Amino acid sequence: MARVVVDVMLKPEILDPQGQAVQRALPRLGFEGIADVRQGKRFELEVEGPVDDAALARINELAETFLANTVIEDFTVRVEELEEETATA
Amino acid sequence: MARVVVDVMLKPEILDPQGQAVQRALPRLGFEGIADVRQGKRFELEVEGPVDDAALARINELAETFLANTVIEDFTVRVEELEEETATA
Repeated sequence: MARVVVDVMLKPEILDPQGQAVQRALPRLGFEGIADVRQGKRFELEVEGPVDDAALARINELAETFLANTVIEDFTVRVEELEEETATA
Repeated sequence: MARVVVDVMLKPEILDPQGQAVQRALPRLGFEGIADVRQGKRFELEVEGPVDDAALARINELAETFLANTVIEDFTVRVEELEEETATA
């Protein structure tokens, strides 16, 4: 089982009110020196079978059509963890 | 300006209804072979000044007290991008 991570962030030109709210709250909470905050989503997918080019292409399609709204969001797909072990229950 | 990324995910033992909803929808949408989906948050912080140990310690504290609910969530802090350039406007 391998873990594939899909990060979905608002495009840079899209206003991010959640991130702005965090950024504005930081000085009040005593944290200075953070110029900008953007908030997005992180999906961790546990993939059965090998994570080859075909599987990654499928996951890219999945992210594009289902996890991200590509009109306003960018996404990245990356393999985070490759477990070679096969669990024998 | 450097970019520090804080990933906040529900702890493994905490039920993740958002992730489950995504995982259950996938076969209906034609995507097989995804055993589990967890959904979390990703914060991108643009940090002014050097990202040294002191800055990272502050960001860890910020993440622990403000970005994550450590009763139910785990977080990771990592430096993603170190820009040495100083913008001269």
